[in-house]
Amino acid sequence: MKLFSSRILTQVLLITALFISQLAFAKKQNEKRDCPNFIIIFVDDMGYGDMSINGHPTIKTPNLDRMATEGQKWTNFYVAAPVCTPSRAGLMTGRLPIRSGMCSSKKRVLFPDSKGGLPEKEITIAKALKQKDYATACIGKWHLGHLPQYTPTSHGFDYFFGIPYSNDMDRIDGPDNVDIIRQPKIDYFNVPLMRNSEIIERPADQTTITKRYTEEAVKFIGENKDNPFFIYLAHSMPHVPLFRSKKFEGISLRGTYGDVIAEIDWSVGRVMEALKKNGIAENTLVVFTSDNGPWLIHNENGGSAGLLKGGKGGTYEGGMREPTVFWWPGTLKEGVVCDMATTMDLLPTISKLAGVQLPTDRVYDGYDIFPIMTGKGKSDRDVVFYYRDTEVFAVRKGAYKAHFFTQADSGRKDVTMYDPPLLYNLNVDPSEKYNIADQHPDIIVEIKKIKEEHEATVVPVENQLEKR
Amino acid sequence: MKLFSSRILTQVLLITALFISQLAFAKKQNEKRDCPNFIIIFVDDMGYGDMSINGHPTIKTPNLDRMATEGQKWTNFYVAAPVCTPSRAGLMTGRLPIRSGMCSSKKRVLFPDSKGGLPEKEITIAKALKQKDYATACIGKWHLGHLPQYTPTSHGFDYFFGIPYSNDMDRIDGPDNVDIIRQPKIDYFNVPLMRNSEIIERPADQTTITKRYTEEAVKFIGENKDNPFFIYLAHSMPHVPLFRSKKFEGISLRGTYGDVIAEIDWSVGRVMEALKKNGIAENTLVVFTSDNGPWLIHNENGGSAGLLKGGKGGTYEGGMREPTVFWWPGTLKEGVVCDMATTMDLLPTISKLAGVQLPTDRVYDGYDIFPIMTGKGKSDRDVVFYYRDTEVFAVRKGAYKAHFFTQADSGRKDVTMYDPPLLYNLNVDPSEKYNIADQHPDIIVEIKKIKEEHEATVVPVENQLEKR
Repeated sequence: MKLFSSRILTQVLLITALFISQLAFAKKQNEKRDCPNFIIIFVDDMGYGDMSINGHPTIKTPNLDRMATEGQKWTNFYVAAPVCTPSRAGLMTGRLPIRSGMCSSKKRVLFPDSKGGLPEKEITIAKALKQKDYATACIGKWHLGHLPQYTPTSHGFDYFFGIPYSNDMDRIDGPDNVDIIRQPKIDYFNVPLMRNSEIIERPADQTTITKRYTEEAVKFIGENKDNPFFIYLAHSMPHVPLFRSKKFEGISLRGTYGDVIAEIDWSVGRVMEALKKNGIAENTLVVFTSDNGPWLIHNENGGSAGLLKGGKGGTYEGGMREPTVFWWPGTLKEGVVCDMATTMDLLPTISKLAGVQLPTDRVYDGYDIFPIMTGKGKSDRDVVFYYRDTEVFAVRKGAYKAHFFTQADSGRKDVTMYDPPLLYNLNVDPSEKYNIADQHPDIIVEIKKIKEEHEATVVPVENQLEKR
Repeated sequence: MKLFSSRILTQVLLITALFISQLAFAKKQNEKRDCPNFIIIFVDDMGYGDMSINGHPTIKTPNLDRMATEGQKWTNFYVAAPVCTPSRAGLMTGRLPIRSGMCSSKKRVLFPDSKGGLPEKEITIAKALKQKDYATACIGKWHLGHLPQYTPTSHGFDYFFGIPYSNDMDRIDGPDNVDIIRQPKIDYFNVPLMRNSEIIERPADQTTITKRYTEEAVKFIGENKDNPFFIYLAHSMPHVPLFRSKKFEGISLRGTYGDVIAEIDWSVGRVMEALKKNGIAENTLVVFTSDNGPWLIHNENGGSAGLLKGGKGGTYEGGMREPTVFWWPGTLKEGVVCDMATTMDLLPTISKLAGVQLPTDRVYDGYDIFPIMTGKGKSDRDVVFYYRDTEVFAVRKGAYKAHFFTQADSGRKDVTMYDPPLLYNLNVDPSEKYNIADQHPDIIVEIKKIKEEHEATVVPVENQLEKR
């Protein structure tokens, strides 16, 4: 009888222990679910048309294609500006770059001799997530200031591995008659590779840069699989000069540019694989997008905006609408998403998902897009502003985009003003071919009002790009 | 003992019978495998950029996307001509339309008052398959002659259900100030709907035409599930005037054109579903493509060639490179195919797969592309000729395309001649932006020779489009 009781007791205890451990496990899962991981893969100068799934005939992107099939391809996803520094400022802060002083028509981006950078009071996605003890890494290109007070580790990132600005900077003259962009060598670009605040290599060996960024990201994923993390994986490629690993040389029919995209696509595959291997794919949102449109003046060394007009630097769609894929197995509603969104929506969306409270002392230009991600609702975004440097050149309201000004993508050629503005229905005419201004005077009045109301929210701040 | 023997005998007999029936079943399966079914879905004026999977931002094509993911998306797939009648002649005969007299610069296509058509001596895919007793149906637009001797049932098809030419023909004036293309009504286009050689409806109710073509195809699949069949499902849409079923009205952000593509995409889904339901998906090759590029002069009522230049009527890529998907579960190597191929390759490929011997008394312009389909090899195609009507305007050899002449897509405006020709590397520069003729005089010499040698194979025949 005693034995029997003891056996029963043991069994009861075992079952109870099992039940408690299950509960604890469930709790841990829930905790994890409360704080999902975030990875933003931000590529440089890749065009809307440069994914196979966006119609490029000779660029193969099997990993991005799969990511899109398993997740969401966004077809109306914008950046905050058509050039690098302001675009990145918008992504990081959820605010238009005009609000942080990170845009200028005189110096369109930061240069190695710049003295400015993202002001300390700005809240980056990394800094926001620090409220919830996220492990945070910036791997890749920063371009929001390279003086100590502006680098990633001064802006909420625990870890930085990358090049602080564009890979075509710190130029050294090549031999006579060598076009250093079309026939690049590492030595022509004396850019530093940094780990945290130290320069570990100069010039950075750009042939292995995509590979090394990827390895760093995969390592960080492995090291942080048990706690929430944020990785900002900002590839230096496919910005010219184009470099890729030996393994990717000559593999693409599209030429060197295609090789470079193939290596980025491989990188995307490695990240997804690492998440699956570590069992955290279902707890991680991965966003892939580009900082601006293709740099068309570089001909075949630049990308393609596909059916969109214009490219990097300008305010036609090709300059600011990006190849974009979201991936989060089990959470996203799979398919093609035509809703409007921008990189500035990531800060509020991520903050909400992580349970972070953002300070209310400033204007944000982003909206929570999680309802779109799950297919259960819409966001509050119905407007996109197309800034060229410090000026609103165009405004999109719903399907309609009004161009108040246009200017050649590159250079400082004459600005053309339109009154009435050019008006396009982007849903029907994404290539901006058929001006319908005369058919919709009412819409023009409405968009003009939106522009004026928006401009009234902008208060002057110190210009960081012109600071000397 | 006798009983026992009898039981053994019965058992032996039963097993033998079972074995034989298995053998017979296996034989039947093999027979089926020897003679796969073929479905060619040929749409009208849809552009390279009009599938979601080719990058259109607001046209949703979930069925085509899935067909491509499960099958093959072809990114360098061409038609024989940039306008309707000659393109269809090329597809049906595996021969350039110049060889059958089915092209002309005076009348670019057949019209309701035309007296010509595809000559009786031409061998269509349907006629070829009749060698192997295929059940054959032409469902949709024919446009290879509407006099009795030229209709589908005179060219190897058991069954015809469709409109014999374009859906914008037999026009009747609309009320004053009505643009009958932009605000179409069925009554403005007095086109006949035929079943075999009889007109069953006039004007054809075009609002339900895509739906009815689809139902006919699904019915034919069901009726012929036990024997080899060929369906040529040639949608009248999205050629203007645009019509779609009630169910598809207003469902696309892309407007009416998007609605029409959505219904075609639905149709594609219905065909795949019917094949699966009847258990013959793994024994059926489905090819989806378009007869020429988008009709750009119709603005938002025309499609988009995506990143390709030009459209219907012209010899830039947008006129002749088509949105193309192959599907054949279990046989095709899944993925994106960049190999060159044309609609003229379908006749030889299909003939070989069905074990049909083609007569050797004529020149064919197609090649067997089955090795590409299985991923096990290449085809012999390394050249594409871009005919505008009766003249070779451009030639592609490998990656390089030389334009000897160009002309505005529509109308009869001046022809521009180039010597040296314009030269583009289409793999690197699919949008034909960067003329590299001066860098490759050797390639130009080679392509000129190819053009001359080809032109020497063309012998004059009676012009069918000018016949009165």
